[in-house]
Amino acid sequence: MASSATIPPASLDQGIATLQDVSNLFYTRGWSVGTSSNYSILLNREPFQLLVTASGKDKRSLAKTDFVVIDRAGKILTETKEKSSAETGLHLMLAQDPNVGSVLHTHSVWGTLLSDYHGDAGGFWIQGYEMLKGLAGIGTHATREWVGIFPNSQDIPALAKEVQAKMHDERKPIRHGFLIRNHGLYTWGKDIHEARRHIEIFEFLFEVLVRRMSLR
Amino acid sequence: MASSATIPPASLDQGIATLQDVSNLFYTRGWSVGTSSNYSILLNREPFQLLVTASGKDKRSLAKTDFVVIDRAGKILTETKEKSSAETGLHLMLAQDPNVGSVLHTHSVWGTLLSDYHGDAGGFWIQGYEMLKGLAGIGTHATREWVGIFPNSQDIPALAKEVQAKMHDERKPIRHGFLIRNHGLYTWGKDIHEARRHIEIFEFLFEVLVRRMSLR
Amino acid sequence: MASSATIPPASLDQGIATLQDVSNLFYTRGWSVGTSSNYSILLNREPFQLLVTASGKDKRSLAKTDFVVIDRAGKILTETKEKSSAETGLHLMLAQDPNVGSVLHTHSVWGTLLSDYHGDAGGFWIQGYEMLKGLAGIGTHATREWVGIFPNSQDIPALAKEVQAKMHDERKPIRHGFLIRNHGLYTWGKDIHEARRHIEIFEFLFEVLVRRMSLR
Amino acid sequence: MASSATIPPASLDQGIATLQDVSNLFYTRGWSVGTSSNYSILLNREPFQLLVTASGKDKRSLAKTDFVVIDRAGKILTETKEKSSAETGLHLMLAQDPNVGSVLHTHSVWGTLLSDYHGDAGGFWIQGYEMLKGLAGIGTHATREWVGIFPNSQDIPALAKEVQAKMHDERKPIRHGFLIRNHGLYTWGKDIHEARRHIEIFEFLFEVLVRRMSLR
Repeated sequence: MASSATIPPASLDQGIATLQDVSNLFYTRGWSVGTSSNYSILLNREPFQLLVTASGKDKRSLAKTDFVVIDRAGKILTETKEKSSAETGLHLMLAQDPNVGSVLHTHSVWGTLLSDYHGDAGGFWIQGYEMLKGLAGIGTHATREWVGIFPNSQDIPALAKEVQAKMHDERKPIRHGFLIRNHGLYTWGKDIHEARRHIEIFEFLFEVLVRRMSLR
Repeated sequence: MASSATIPPASLDQGIATLQDVSNLFYTRGWSVGTSSNYSILLNREPFQLLVTASGKDKRSLAKTDFVVIDRAGKILTETKEKSSAETGLHLMLAQDPNVGSVLHTHSVWGTLLSDYHGDAGGFWIQGYEMLKGLAGIGTHATREWVGIFPNSQDIPALAKEVQAKMHDERKPIRHGFLIRNHGLYTWGKDIHEARRHIEIFEFLFEVLVRRMSLR
Repeated sequence: MASSATIPPASLDQGIATLQDVSNLFYTRGWSVGTSSNYSILLNREPFQLLVTASGKDKRSLAKTDFVVIDRAGKILTETKEKSSAETGLHLMLAQDPNVGSVLHTHSVWGTLLSDYHGDAGGFWIQGYEMLKGLAGIGTHATREWVGIFPNSQDIPALAKEVQAKMHDERKPIRHGFLIRNHGLYTWGKDIHEARRHIEIFEFLFEVLVRRMSLR
Repeated sequence: MASSATIPPASLDQGIATLQDVSNLFYTRGWSVGTSSNYSILLNREPFQLLVTASGKDKRSLAKTDFVVIDRAGKILTETKEKSSAETGLHLMLAQDPNVGSVLHTHSVWGTLLSDYHGDAGGFWIQGYEMLKGLAGIGTHATREWVGIFPNSQDIPALAKEVQAKMHDERKPIRHGFLIRNHGLYTWGKDIHEARRHIEIFEFLFEVLVRRMSLR
């Protein structure tokens, strides 16, 4: 086990403080209630050090000890009594991408509704909204974004593989996020700020999509 | 009457502070407006000492004096001008279970709607949601939870008996919470943290269930 | 003009501080946005001194100078550059009742919707909800409350007379509050705490009534 | 390039502080999430100095450096690394009106829904609501307000021209605000306080209009 001394303490403290802030924000918004959700920030690419929330913590007010640092294989690098969440496997899979510096997983009402409504179709397109420009690399509303949906599973390694296989689908690539059916949203970004922006963009658009169903 | 000196002052102060915090949180969430709701924490099992909110207090900002401590029979153990709520009888019934350390009763819009919609059926199942894993003892989404509904009554002893008779129903056991029709939710946990988590889980799922009705 | 010295400064300061707090709360809840709403507290019954918010102020953050004190006829008793709201006439009418110590007028989305939906019927019953017990003098859910609705008018004296004529209607008495169509809610209480409780109870029940319309 | 010394530092600091406050408020309300929205305050009419939020900033917490000052042509007058938003062109067009001292552009769920629902009609009337009196110059609910809707475009100069051509339409004048389809709201006022009031009024009425569609 690597000693925690190999982890830059400044970035560790900063990472924890940032996730504490984001966590309280998401709890207040209703996206991370009931100890749901988990969040991660890449502290270092090589050697790989991922700061991730420990399993089952109250997201309203995370303590400094409610985090673990793991390596590429998911092994905990810090001395701690905590366990990393089972879902850490999805964070690890996503953070292998050299462009990904943060992964956020939340549970919202709007996302849950859409994940079930479009579940059999395996996903849905979001098209024509200005807010899409909040997703990295999108410069116009005149585009469309595929949000993949995967059946929920407690077998996270299998789920991670299934997601990975669809990420670069030719016709329906998963570019910024996906839903797990009746479960929640995964999104990511080059850093925590971009990842949080993606959560806000998706949640806004999810709410719009559900509410417009009752407009006619 | 037992003197208040027999109640450990440390846990009493801590219990009050915790309920003040939870109370303001629930008020802000809209689950405890208009002086509705009541909350309890078990201070001691033997002799039985239950800290419970006094009747009719504003949950936005509970004062230290807005609480009473009662024994197993509901007798007030502390010197106070306050009355315990009539609904204390339900708290007492639930807290007899040696695994219960806290009982929370709230009034939400979503719960009220479901309690009436499914009232004639006596309850409803919640099935297949990842958020169910936030209820103690549930480790997979592939399960279902029965939320019993009871007709509202101002006769709390009769209501408590009726609930107690259904708690261990073979086909529809009430494991984590029940609704009183057009009234509110009761849930509980081994401690206040678990009980609050249960409120958050139920409220999230209630909102999902009501909103999905307008999706088609 | 009476000098402001005849108004007990302690109760004046306390009244202002309480209304500042309630005002920010209501703004945050979405019941008093866009400088809408006005609130009053009776400082003294004889001689009659009513503290009321001045016309057109931002309810998010009322300044100490955003209030006036008026007598029974609506004459301003304090040195001020402010005007009392035109709607002060309704506050004055309601505060004539010796049991009324505070009047609150708010503008909510739910109330607006119901005021139009039931506008032609002149009001609607709220029946069978536990939350009705939050209205003063109601001790059981097994009751019903009439919420009168009046056509909106910029002629406040005429509106006040019309309301007054219906307050003690034999079959549909207005006991705790009424709506003005596509405008807002008036409620009151023996003091500001009771009046605020009534707002919270009505708003909760209004939301329930509107949302249940989409349940089928 | 004019030096920043020609900009009155007092009003600059005050303008920034006011927009920081409004920005956080709008973020919290859900009208400016995901770095969307931009806001401006006129610091000086002659020479023309418009304080405007820089492109792509997080509206939850704007830093002092997240602003630029521009002249009538959109040229940046302050030393800064920031860019003004492409949409600044619409702010500049609107602020040419000598009665306009502040322009606010937000992205809300309710506005997005209405902008699409009534998009083909080019706008919609809001009629008969008391809250309309919160729009400058309106003194009675017995009026109607046209909210124009324009097709979204990334060509802001063209969009600005299109809006300008419709502002003084004889039958459907745009008096206080307009929507861009599936994008957001523009409103304005003589100062930031009036402009914020207009946002709050429109958002309230947008929510009412959408929700009433599900009432029948």
